[in-house]
Amino acid sequence: MVHGQGQRPSLLMAPLPLVAPRGAAVAVAIDVLRASSTAVVAHGRGAHRVLVASSLREARRLRRTFADHLLAGERGGLPPPGFDLGNSPWQALAADLRGRGLVLTTSNGTRLLRRLAHLPVVLVGCLLNRRAVATVAAAQARALGLPVALVCAGEAGGRELALEDVIGAGAIVETLLELGHPLEPDEWARLALLAFEAARRDLPSALAATRHGRQLAALGLGDDVAYCARLDEWEVVPRLERGAEGLLALRPCPLPPAR
Amino acid sequence: MVHGQGQRPSLLMAPLPLVAPRGAAVAVAIDVLRASSTAVVAHGRGAHRVLVASSLREARRLRRTFADHLLAGERGGLPPPGFDLGNSPWQALAADLRGRGLVLTTSNGTRLLRRLAHLPVVLVGCLLNRRAVATVAAAQARALGLPVALVCAGEAGGRELALEDVIGAGAIVETLLELGHPLEPDEWARLALLAFEAARRDLPSALAATRHGRQLAALGLGDDVAYCARLDEWEVVPRLERGAEGLLALRPCPLPPAR
Repeated sequence: MVHGQGQRPSLLMAPLPLVAPRGAAVAVAIDVLRASSTAVVAHGRGAHRVLVASSLREARRLRRTFADHLLAGERGGLPPPGFDLGNSPWQALAADLRGRGLVLTTSNGTRLLRRLAHLPVVLVGCLLNRRAVATVAAAQARALGLPVALVCAGEAGGRELALEDVIGAGAIVETLLELGHPLEPDEWARLALLAFEAARRDLPSALAATRHGRQLAALGLGDDVAYCARLDEWEVVPRLERGAEGLLALRPCPLPPAR
Repeated sequence: MVHGQGQRPSLLMAPLPLVAPRGAAVAVAIDVLRASSTAVVAHGRGAHRVLVASSLREARRLRRTFADHLLAGERGGLPPPGFDLGNSPWQALAADLRGRGLVLTTSNGTRLLRRLAHLPVVLVGCLLNRRAVATVAAAQARALGLPVALVCAGEAGGRELALEDVIGAGAIVETLLELGHPLEPDEWARLALLAFEAARRDLPSALAATRHGRQLAALGLGDDVAYCARLDEWEVVPRLERGAEGLLALRPCPLPPAR
Protein backbone atom coordinates (compact mmCIF):
# COMPACT_ATOMS: atom_id res chain seq x y z
CA MET A 1 0.00 0.00 0.00
CA VAL A 2 1.24 3.43 -0.92
CA HIS A 3 0.20 6.25 1.35
CA GLY A 4 0.65 9.96 0.97
CA GLN A 5 2.10 12.25 3.58
CA GLY A 6 0.61 12.11 7.03
CA GLN A 7 -0.16 9.38 9.48
CA ARG A 8 -0.25 5.79 8.34
CA PRO A 9 -3.84 4.52 8.59
CA SER A 10 -4.47 2.60 11.81
CA LEU A 11 -8.14 1.90 11.08
CA LEU A 12 -8.52 -0.20 7.96
CA MET A 13 -11.71 -1.39 6.31
CA ALA A 14 -11.95 -4.21 3.77
CA PRO A 15 -15.26 -4.31 1.86
CA LEU A 16 -14.53 -7.91 0.84
CA PRO A 17 -12.48 -10.64 2.54
CA LEU A 18 -10.18 -10.83 -0.49
CA VAL A 19 -8.77 -7.38 0.25
CA ALA A 20 -8.37 -7.93 3.99
CA PRO A 21 -5.04 -6.65 5.30
CA ARG A 22 -2.27 -9.25 5.33
CA GLY A 23 -0.30 -7.85 8.25
CA ALA A 24 -1.10 -8.34 11.94
CA ALA A 25 -4.18 -6.49 13.14
CA VAL A 26 -7.03 -6.58 15.59
CA ALA A 27 -9.72 -7.83 13.22
CA VAL A 28 -13.46 -7.35 13.46
CA ALA A 29 -15.40 -9.81 11.31
CA ILE A 30 -18.64 -8.23 10.11
CA ASP A 31 -21.55 -10.26 8.71
CA VAL A 32 -24.57 -8.16 9.64
CA LEU A 33 -27.08 -10.43 7.82
CA ARG A 34 -26.80 -12.61 9.79
CA ALA A 35 -23.91 -14.64 11.22
CA SER A 36 -22.40 -11.86 13.37
CA SER A 37 -25.83 -10.92 14.67
CA THR A 38 -26.74 -14.53 15.46
CA ALA A 39 -23.49 -15.06 17.40
CA VAL A 40 -24.02 -11.87 19.42
CA VAL A 41 -27.59 -12.80 20.36
CA ALA A 42 -26.57 -16.38 21.17
CA HIS A 43 -24.00 -15.13 23.69
CA GLY A 44 -26.48 -12.55 24.92
CA ARG A 45 -28.98 -15.33 25.59
CA GLY A 46 -26.38 -17.22 27.59
CA ALA A 47 -24.50 -19.50 25.18
CA HIS A 48 -21.00 -20.08 26.60
CA ARG A 49 -19.58 -20.75 23.16
CA VAL A 50 -20.43 -20.85 19.48
CA LEU A 51 -18.58 -23.51 17.50
CA VAL A 52 -17.96 -22.41 13.93
CA ALA A 53 -18.40 -25.21 11.40
CA SER A 54 -17.39 -24.88 7.76
CA SER A 55 -19.62 -27.62 6.37
CA LEU A 56 -22.95 -29.24 7.15
CA ARG A 57 -21.09 -32.49 7.77
CA GLU A 58 -18.76 -30.87 10.31
CA ALA A 59 -21.70 -29.08 11.95
CA ARG A 60 -23.63 -32.34 12.41
CA ARG A 61 -20.50 -34.12 13.70
CA LEU A 62 -19.90 -31.38 16.29
CA ARG A 63 -23.55 -31.54 17.33
CA ARG A 64 -23.15 -35.28 18.01
CA THR A 65 -19.93 -34.70 19.95
CA PHE A 66 -21.29 -31.91 22.16
CA ALA A 67 -24.72 -33.05 23.28
CA ASP A 68 -25.57 -29.78 25.08
CA HIS A 69 -25.10 -27.74 21.88
CA LEU A 70 -27.89 -26.62 19.59
CA LEU A 71 -27.36 -26.78 15.84
CA ALA A 72 -27.90 -23.51 13.96
CA GLY A 73 -27.15 -22.27 10.48
CA GLU A 74 -28.34 -21.85 6.94
CA ARG A 75 -27.80 -22.73 3.36
CA GLY A 76 -29.57 -20.45 0.87
CA GLY A 77 -30.90 -18.49 3.85
CA LEU A 78 -32.88 -21.38 5.37
CA PRO A 79 -32.03 -23.90 8.13
CA PRO A 80 -30.89 -27.26 6.71
CA PRO A 81 -32.87 -30.41 7.65
CA GLY A 82 -32.52 -31.42 11.29
CA PHE A 83 -31.22 -28.04 12.47
CA ASP A 84 -32.58 -26.61 15.73
CA LEU A 85 -32.35 -22.99 14.58
CA GLY A 86 -31.75 -21.01 11.44
CA ASN A 87 -28.88 -18.54 11.21
CA SER A 88 -31.38 -16.32 12.93
CA PRO A 89 -30.87 -13.71 15.65
CA TRP A 90 -34.64 -13.49 15.89
CA GLN A 91 -34.91 -17.21 16.69
CA ALA A 92 -31.87 -17.08 18.98
CA LEU A 93 -33.58 -14.31 20.93
CA ALA A 94 -36.43 -16.68 21.79
CA ALA A 95 -34.10 -19.52 22.83
CA ASP A 96 -32.81 -20.05 26.37
CA LEU A 97 -29.14 -20.86 25.82
CA ARG A 98 -27.91 -20.61 29.43
CA GLY A 99 -25.36 -23.34 30.04
CA ARG A 100 -25.50 -24.47 26.43
CA GLY A 101 -23.42 -23.96 23.33
CA LEU A 102 -24.27 -23.45 19.68
CA VAL A 103 -22.85 -25.04 16.56
CA LEU A 104 -23.17 -22.48 13.75
CA THR A 105 -22.56 -22.93 10.04
CA THR A 106 -23.39 -20.23 7.48
CA SER A 107 -22.64 -19.48 3.83
CA ASN A 108 -20.26 -16.55 4.25
CA GLY A 109 -19.70 -15.64 7.88
CA THR A 110 -18.06 -18.96 8.72
CA ARG A 111 -15.68 -18.71 5.78
CA LEU A 112 -14.66 -15.23 6.86
CA LEU A 113 -13.76 -16.36 10.38
CA ARG A 114 -11.69 -19.22 8.99
CA ARG A 115 -9.84 -16.78 6.74
CA LEU A 116 -9.05 -14.44 9.65
CA ALA A 117 -8.19 -17.16 12.18
CA HIS A 118 -4.41 -16.59 11.87
CA LEU A 119 -4.68 -13.04 13.25
CA PRO A 120 -3.85 -12.37 16.92
CA VAL A 121 -7.30 -11.00 17.80
CA VAL A 122 -10.54 -11.65 15.90
CA LEU A 123 -13.76 -10.15 17.23
CA VAL A 124 -17.27 -10.42 15.82
CA GLY A 125 -19.14 -7.19 15.13
CA CYS A 126 -22.44 -5.96 13.79
CA LEU A 127 -24.91 -3.18 14.49
CA LEU A 128 -26.30 -5.01 17.54
CA ASN A 129 -22.98 -4.79 19.43
CA ARG A 130 -21.21 -1.97 17.66
CA ARG A 131 -20.29 0.15 20.69
CA ALA A 132 -19.12 -2.89 22.66
CA VAL A 133 -17.05 -4.34 19.81
CA ALA A 134 -15.51 -0.96 19.02
CA THR A 135 -14.55 -0.51 22.65
CA VAL A 136 -12.88 -3.93 22.86
CA ALA A 137 -11.16 -3.50 19.49
CA ALA A 138 -9.74 -0.12 20.47
CA ALA A 139 -8.47 -1.47 23.81
CA GLN A 140 -6.84 -4.49 22.14
CA ALA A 141 -5.29 -2.36 19.39
CA ARG A 142 -3.82 -0.01 21.95
CA ALA A 143 -2.50 -2.83 24.13
CA LEU A 144 -0.89 -4.68 21.20
CA GLY A 145 0.18 -1.63 19.18
CA LEU A 146 -1.72 -2.93 16.15
CA PRO A 147 -4.14 -1.37 13.68
CA VAL A 148 -7.83 -2.24 13.73
CA ALA A 149 -9.04 -4.00 10.58
CA LEU A 150 -12.77 -4.18 9.90
CA VAL A 151 -13.41 -7.01 7.44
CA CYS A 152 -16.76 -7.48 5.73
CA ALA A 153 -18.02 -10.97 4.89
CA GLY A 154 -19.70 -10.05 1.62
CA GLU A 155 -21.78 -12.49 -0.41
CA ALA A 156 -21.22 -15.31 -2.85
CA GLY A 157 -18.29 -16.72 -0.90
CA GLY A 158 -16.93 -13.23 -0.27
CA ARG A 159 -16.59 -12.30 -3.94
CA GLU A 160 -19.42 -9.76 -3.91
CA LEU A 161 -20.20 -6.74 -1.82
CA ALA A 162 -22.89 -6.94 0.86
CA LEU A 163 -23.89 -3.34 1.49
CA GLU A 164 -25.21 -4.08 4.98
CA ASP A 165 -21.72 -5.12 6.05
CA VAL A 166 -20.28 -1.77 4.97
CA ILE A 167 -23.05 0.02 6.89
CA GLY A 168 -22.16 -2.07 9.95
CA ALA A 169 -18.47 -1.28 9.48
CA GLY A 170 -19.30 2.43 9.27
CA ALA A 171 -21.21 2.23 12.55
CA ILE A 172 -18.15 0.69 14.21
CA VAL A 173 -15.89 3.33 12.63
CA GLU A 174 -18.06 6.04 14.17
CA THR A 175 -17.53 4.72 17.69
CA LEU A 176 -13.82 4.01 17.13
CA LEU A 177 -13.30 7.64 16.10
CA GLU A 178 -15.22 8.86 19.16
CA LEU A 179 -13.08 6.90 21.62
CA GLY A 180 -10.17 8.51 23.35
CA HIS A 181 -7.50 6.55 21.47
CA PRO A 182 -7.58 8.17 18.05
CA LEU A 183 -7.25 5.93 15.02
CA GLU A 184 -6.47 7.24 11.54
CA PRO A 185 -9.06 5.83 9.12
CA ASP A 186 -8.15 4.75 5.62
CA GLU A 187 -10.26 5.73 2.61
CA TRP A 188 -12.43 2.60 2.86
CA ALA A 189 -13.19 3.30 6.53
CA ARG A 190 -14.13 6.88 5.63
CA LEU A 191 -16.41 5.56 2.90
CA ALA A 192 -18.07 3.16 5.35
CA LEU A 193 -18.63 6.01 7.80
CA LEU A 194 -20.35 8.11 5.12
CA ALA A 195 -22.57 5.15 4.21
CA PHE A 196 -23.54 4.67 7.84
CA GLU A 197 -24.21 8.38 8.33
CA ALA A 198 -26.72 8.28 5.46
CA ALA A 199 -28.22 4.94 6.49
CA ARG A 200 -28.66 5.75 10.18
CA ARG A 201 -31.64 8.00 9.46
CA ASP A 202 -33.56 4.74 9.03
CA LEU A 203 -31.45 1.64 9.58
CA PRO A 204 -34.31 -0.88 9.19
CA SER A 205 -35.14 0.53 5.75
CA ALA A 206 -31.48 0.73 4.77
CA LEU A 207 -30.93 -2.95 5.61
CA ALA A 208 -34.21 -3.98 3.98
CA ALA A 209 -33.10 -2.24 0.75
CA THR A 210 -29.85 -4.21 0.40
CA ARG A 211 -29.75 -7.17 -1.96
CA HIS A 212 -29.42 -9.59 0.92
CA GLY A 213 -32.18 -7.86 2.86
CA ARG A 214 -34.55 -8.22 -0.09
CA GLN A 215 -33.61 -11.89 -0.46
CA LEU A 216 -34.29 -12.60 3.21
CA ALA A 217 -37.62 -10.74 3.09
CA ALA A 218 -38.62 -12.89 0.10
CA LEU A 219 -37.90 -15.96 2.24
CA GLY A 220 -40.20 -14.61 4.97
CA LEU A 221 -37.27 -13.60 7.18
CA GLY A 222 -38.02 -9.89 7.41
CA ASP A 223 -38.09 -10.08 11.23
CA ASP A 224 -34.42 -11.03 11.20
CA VAL A 225 -33.53 -8.11 8.94
CA ALA A 226 -35.42 -5.65 11.14
CA TYR A 227 -33.80 -7.01 14.31
CA CYS A 228 -30.28 -6.86 12.85
CA ALA A 229 -30.84 -3.11 12.23
CA ARG A 230 -30.94 -2.35 15.97
CA LEU A 231 -27.95 -0.31 17.11
CA ASP A 232 -26.10 -1.01 20.36
CA GLU A 233 -28.65 -3.57 21.52
CA TRP A 234 -26.17 -5.93 23.21
CA GLU A 235 -23.01 -5.41 25.27
CA VAL A 236 -21.59 -8.69 24.03
CA VAL A 237 -18.42 -9.29 22.00
CA PRO A 238 -17.72 -12.76 20.59
CA ARG A 239 -14.01 -13.47 20.25
CA LEU A 240 -12.53 -16.19 18.09
CA GLU A 241 -10.48 -18.92 19.78
CA ARG A 242 -8.57 -21.63 18.01
CA GLY A 243 -8.89 -24.96 19.76
CA ALA A 244 -7.54 -28.48 19.24
CA GLU A 245 -7.75 -29.95 15.74
CA GLY A 246 -8.34 -26.53 14.22
CA LEU A 247 -11.69 -26.19 15.95
CA LEU A 248 -12.88 -22.58 15.79
CA ALA A 249 -14.97 -21.32 18.68
CA LEU A 250 -16.43 -17.97 19.65
CA ARG A 251 -16.51 -17.08 23.33
CA PRO A 252 -17.81 -13.90 24.98
CA CYS A 253 -14.94 -11.49 25.53
CA PRO A 254 -14.86 -9.45 28.77
CA LEU A 255 -15.47 -5.74 28.19
CA PRO A 256 -12.86 -3.23 29.41
CA PRO A 257 -13.96 -1.24 32.48
CA ALA A 258 -16.06 1.82 31.64
CA ARG A 259 -13.97 4.99 31.51
CA MET B 1 -21.12 -12.27 -10.93
CA VAL B 2 -23.84 -14.14 -9.07
CA HIS B 3 -27.06 -12.27 -8.46
CA GLY B 4 -30.06 -13.24 -6.39
CA GLN B 5 -33.62 -13.21 -7.56
CA GLY B 6 -34.93 -10.06 -9.13
CA GLN B 7 -33.73 -7.79 -11.86
CA ARG B 8 -30.18 -8.05 -13.09
CA PRO B 9 -28.36 -4.82 -12.18
CA SER B 10 -28.24 -2.34 -15.05
CA LEU B 11 -26.34 0.32 -13.11
CA LEU B 12 -22.94 -0.95 -12.05
CA MET B 13 -20.30 0.86 -10.02
CA ALA B 14 -16.64 -0.12 -9.81
CA PRO B 15 -14.73 1.54 -6.94
CA LEU B 16 -11.45 0.66 -8.65
CA PRO B 17 -10.58 0.17 -12.33
CA LEU B 18 -9.51 -3.42 -11.61
CA VAL B 19 -13.08 -4.45 -10.87
CA ALA B 20 -14.61 -2.63 -13.83
CA PRO B 21 -17.19 -4.76 -15.67
CA ARG B 22 -15.78 -6.81 -18.52
CA GLY B 23 -18.90 -6.89 -20.67
CA ALA B 24 -20.15 -4.14 -22.97
CA ALA B 25 -21.48 -1.09 -21.16
CA VAL B 26 -21.91 2.65 -21.37
CA ALA B 27 -18.99 3.64 -19.17
CA VAL B 28 -18.53 6.80 -17.16
CA ALA B 29 -14.91 7.42 -16.16
CA ILE B 30 -14.77 9.27 -12.85
CA ASP B 31 -11.65 11.05 -11.61
CA VAL B 32 -13.06 13.89 -9.51
CA LEU B 33 -9.64 15.13 -8.34
CA ARG B 34 -8.90 16.18 -10.98
CA ALA B 35 -8.70 14.76 -14.50
CA SER B 36 -12.45 14.49 -15.12
CA SER B 37 -12.99 17.98 -13.73
CA THR B 38 -10.18 19.46 -15.82
CA ALA B 39 -11.56 17.93 -19.03
CA VAL B 40 -15.06 19.23 -18.30
CA VAL B 41 -13.85 22.78 -17.63
CA ALA B 42 -11.57 22.68 -20.70
CA HIS B 43 -14.53 21.89 -22.94
CA GLY B 44 -16.65 24.41 -21.06
CA ARG B 45 -14.04 27.07 -21.80
CA GLY B 46 -14.14 26.23 -25.50
CA ALA B 47 -11.56 23.49 -26.11
CA HIS B 48 -12.69 21.46 -29.14
CA ARG B 49 -10.79 18.41 -27.97
CA VAL B 50 -8.63 17.05 -25.19
CA LEU B 51 -5.91 14.64 -26.31
CA VAL B 52 -5.18 12.03 -23.66
CA ALA B 53 -1.49 11.23 -23.33
CA SER B 54 -0.19 8.31 -21.28
CA SER B 55 3.34 9.62 -20.76
CA LEU B 56 5.13 12.92 -20.50
CA ARG B 57 7.04 12.01 -23.67
CA GLU B 58 3.82 11.38 -25.61
CA ALA B 59 2.28 14.56 -24.20
CA ARG B 60 5.22 16.69 -25.36
CA ARG B 61 5.25 15.00 -28.77
CA LEU B 62 1.53 15.72 -29.26
CA ARG B 63 2.07 19.31 -28.18
CA ARG B 64 4.72 19.71 -30.90
CA THR B 65 2.43 18.09 -33.51
CA PHE B 66 -0.62 20.21 -32.70
CA ALA B 67 0.62 23.75 -32.33
CA ASP B 68 -2.75 25.20 -31.28
CA HIS B 69 -2.94 22.84 -28.26
CA LEU B 70 -1.99 23.74 -24.73
CA LEU B 71 -0.11 21.24 -22.62
CA ALA B 72 -1.71 20.34 -19.28
CA GLY B 73 -1.20 17.68 -16.66
CA GLU B 74 0.55 16.61 -13.52
CA ARG B 75 2.93 14.23 -11.91
CA GLY B 76 2.77 14.11 -8.14
CA GLY B 77 0.01 16.71 -8.32
CA LEU B 78 2.13 19.44 -9.94
CA PRO B 79 2.62 20.50 -13.58
CA PRO B 80 5.80 19.05 -15.10
CA PRO B 81 8.42 21.46 -16.48
CA GLY B 82 7.34 23.30 -19.63
CA PHE B 83 3.62 22.61 -19.16
CA ASP B 84 1.15 25.44 -19.81
CA LEU B 85 -1.30 24.31 -17.13
CA GLY B 86 -1.52 21.86 -14.28
CA ASN B 87 -4.19 19.18 -14.19
CA SER B 88 -6.23 22.02 -12.82
CA PRO B 89 -9.87 22.91 -13.41
CA TRP B 90 -9.19 26.14 -11.54
CA GLN B 91 -6.45 27.12 -14.00
CA ALA B 92 -8.51 25.89 -16.98
CA LEU B 93 -11.32 28.15 -15.84
CA ALA B 94 -9.07 31.18 -16.29
CA ALA B 95 -7.86 30.10 -19.74
CA ASP B 96 -9.53 31.06 -23.03
CA LEU B 97 -9.54 27.79 -24.96
CA ARG B 98 -11.88 28.78 -27.81
CA GLY B 99 -10.60 27.26 -31.04
CA ARG B 100 -7.83 25.45 -29.21
CA GLY B 101 -7.22 21.94 -27.95
CA LEU B 102 -5.58 20.55 -24.84
CA VAL B 103 -3.06 17.76 -24.39
CA LEU B 104 -3.68 16.23 -20.94
CA THR B 105 -1.61 13.69 -19.05
CA THR B 106 -2.32 12.72 -15.45
CA SER B 107 -1.31 9.99 -13.02
CA ASN B 108 -4.54 8.01 -12.85
CA GLY B 109 -7.29 9.52 -15.00
CA THR B 110 -5.40 8.92 -18.24
CA ARG B 111 -4.73 5.28 -17.38
CA LEU B 112 -8.40 4.76 -16.64
CA LEU B 113 -9.48 6.09 -20.04
CA ARG B 114 -6.97 3.84 -21.80
CA ARG B 115 -8.31 0.85 -19.87
CA LEU B 116 -11.91 1.62 -20.85
CA ALA B 117 -11.18 2.58 -24.48
CA HIS B 118 -12.46 -0.76 -25.89
CA LEU B 119 -16.01 -0.06 -24.66
CA PRO B 120 -18.64 1.26 -27.10
CA VAL B 121 -19.30 4.48 -25.16
CA VAL B 122 -16.97 6.12 -22.65
CA LEU B 123 -18.04 9.40 -21.06
CA VAL B 124 -16.20 11.52 -18.52
CA GLY B 125 -18.02 12.40 -15.33
CA CYS B 126 -17.51 14.28 -12.08
CA LEU B 127 -19.52 16.48 -9.74
CA LEU B 128 -19.19 19.48 -12.07
CA ASN B 129 -21.17 17.81 -14.88
CA ARG B 130 -23.06 15.10 -13.00
CA ARG B 131 -26.57 15.88 -14.27
CA ALA B 132 -25.36 16.26 -17.86
CA VAL B 133 -23.27 13.08 -17.86
CA ALA B 134 -26.06 11.07 -16.20
CA THR B 135 -28.51 12.30 -18.85
CA VAL B 136 -26.22 11.33 -21.73
CA ALA B 137 -25.33 7.97 -20.14
CA ALA B 138 -28.99 7.08 -19.61
CA ALA B 139 -29.88 8.02 -23.20
CA GLN B 140 -26.97 5.99 -24.61
CA ALA B 141 -27.76 2.99 -22.40
CA ARG B 142 -31.37 3.04 -23.50
CA ALA B 143 -30.47 3.40 -27.19
CA LEU B 144 -27.90 0.59 -27.10
CA GLY B 145 -29.66 -1.69 -24.62
CA LEU B 146 -26.58 -1.72 -22.38
CA PRO B 147 -25.99 -1.25 -18.67
CA VAL B 148 -24.34 1.89 -17.33
CA ALA B 149 -20.99 1.28 -15.63
CA LEU B 150 -19.53 3.98 -13.40
CA VAL B 151 -15.80 3.36 -13.05
CA CYS B 152 -13.67 5.19 -10.50
CA ALA B 153 -10.06 6.07 -11.27
CA GLY B 154 -8.72 5.52 -7.77
CA GLU B 155 -5.16 6.31 -6.76
CA ALA B 156 -1.74 4.70 -7.01
CA GLY B 157 -2.33 3.49 -10.55
CA GLY B 158 -5.88 2.46 -9.70
CA ARG B 159 -4.89 0.04 -6.92
CA GLU B 160 -6.25 2.19 -4.08
CA LEU B 161 -9.59 3.75 -3.38
CA ALA B 162 -10.09 7.47 -3.91
CA LEU B 163 -13.11 8.36 -1.80
CA GLU B 164 -13.91 11.47 -3.84
CA ASP B 165 -14.51 9.28 -6.90
CA VAL B 166 -17.10 7.20 -5.03
CA ILE B 167 -18.80 10.41 -3.90
CA GLY B 168 -18.87 11.58 -7.53
CA ALA B 169 -20.23 8.20 -8.63
CA GLY B 170 -22.96 8.47 -6.01
CA ALA B 171 -23.96 11.90 -7.31
CA ILE B 172 -24.33 10.43 -10.80
CA VAL B 173 -26.28 7.45 -9.42
CA GLU B 174 -28.72 9.88 -7.82
CA THR B 175 -29.55 11.53 -11.14
CA LEU B 176 -29.65 8.23 -13.03
CA LEU B 177 -32.27 6.92 -10.60
CA GLU B 178 -34.29 10.12 -10.96
CA LEU B 179 -34.47 9.92 -14.75
CA GLY B 180 -37.44 8.35 -16.45
CA HIS B 181 -35.56 5.25 -17.64
CA PRO B 182 -35.15 3.27 -14.44
CA LEU B 183 -31.86 1.49 -13.88
CA GLU B 184 -31.40 -1.24 -11.26
CA PRO B 185 -28.35 -0.34 -9.15
CA ASP B 186 -25.92 -2.98 -7.92
CA GLU B 187 -24.67 -3.00 -4.33
CA TRP B 188 -21.67 -0.81 -5.14
CA ALA B 189 -23.90 1.81 -6.79
CA ARG B 190 -26.15 1.78 -3.71
CA LEU B 191 -23.09 2.25 -1.51
CA ALA B 192 -21.92 5.18 -3.63
CA LEU B 193 -25.36 6.79 -3.36
CA LEU B 194 -25.29 6.52 0.44
CA ALA B 195 -21.82 8.07 0.50
CA PHE B 196 -23.00 10.96 -1.67
CA GLU B 197 -26.12 11.50 0.44
CA ALA B 198 -23.95 11.94 3.52
CA ALA B 199 -21.32 14.04 1.73
CA ARG B 200 -23.73 16.40 -0.03
CA ARG B 201 -24.43 18.27 3.21
CA ASP B 202 -21.04 19.89 2.64
CA LEU B 203 -19.32 18.71 -0.52
CA PRO B 204 -16.29 21.05 -0.22
CA SER B 205 -15.52 19.70 3.24
CA ALA B 206 -16.13 16.11 2.15
CA LEU B 207 -13.67 16.43 -0.74
CA ALA B 208 -11.14 18.30 1.40
CA ALA B 209 -11.25 15.43 3.94
CA THR B 210 -10.29 12.73 1.43
CA ARG B 211 -6.69 11.57 1.28
CA HIS B 212 -6.23 13.11 -2.15
CA GLY B 213 -7.93 16.32 -1.06
CA ARG B 214 -5.52 16.65 1.85
CA GLN B 215 -2.55 15.96 -0.41
CA LEU B 216 -3.63 18.66 -2.89
CA ALA B 217 -4.25 21.17 -0.09
CA ALA B 218 -0.72 20.49 1.19
CA LEU B 219 0.57 21.38 -2.31
CA GLY B 220 -1.34 24.69 -2.19
CA LEU B 221 -4.03 23.43 -4.55
CA GLY B 222 -7.02 23.86 -2.24
CA ASP B 223 -8.77 26.09 -4.82
CA ASP B 224 -8.92 23.12 -7.19
CA VAL B 225 -10.42 20.88 -4.52
CA ALA B 226 -13.07 23.46 -3.63
CA TYR B 227 -13.95 24.02 -7.29
CA CYS B 228 -14.27 20.28 -8.02
CA ALA B 229 -16.89 20.10 -5.24
CA ARG B 230 -19.38 22.22 -7.21
CA LEU B 231 -22.39 20.21 -8.31
CA ASP B 232 -23.94 20.57 -11.79
CA GLU B 233 -21.76 23.53 -12.69
CA TRP B 234 -21.30 22.64 -16.37
CA GLU B 235 -23.58 21.15 -19.03
CA VAL B 236 -20.64 19.55 -20.76
CA VAL B 237 -19.94 15.85 -21.36
CA PRO B 238 -16.55 14.77 -22.73
CA ARG B 239 -16.77 11.58 -24.78
CA LEU B 240 -13.81 9.38 -25.65
CA GLU B 241 -12.94 8.86 -29.31
CA ARG B 242 -10.31 6.52 -30.63
CA GLY B 243 -8.37 8.05 -33.50
CA ALA B 244 -5.57 6.93 -35.79
CA GLU B 245 -2.51 5.27 -34.20
CA GLY B 246 -4.44 4.61 -30.98
CA LEU B 247 -4.72 8.33 -30.27
CA LEU B 248 -7.30 8.91 -27.54
CA ALA B 249 -9.25 12.16 -27.67
CA LEU B 250 -12.13 13.62 -25.69
CA ARG B 251 -14.69 15.69 -27.57
CA PRO B 252 -17.80 17.41 -26.22
CA CYS B 253 -20.82 15.16 -26.68
CA PRO B 254 -24.14 16.74 -27.71
CA LEU B 255 -26.74 16.61 -24.95
CA PRO B 256 -30.09 14.94 -25.66
CA PRO B 257 -32.99 17.41 -26.04
CA ALA B 258 -34.54 18.42 -22.70
CA ARG B 259 -37.61 16.33 -21.90
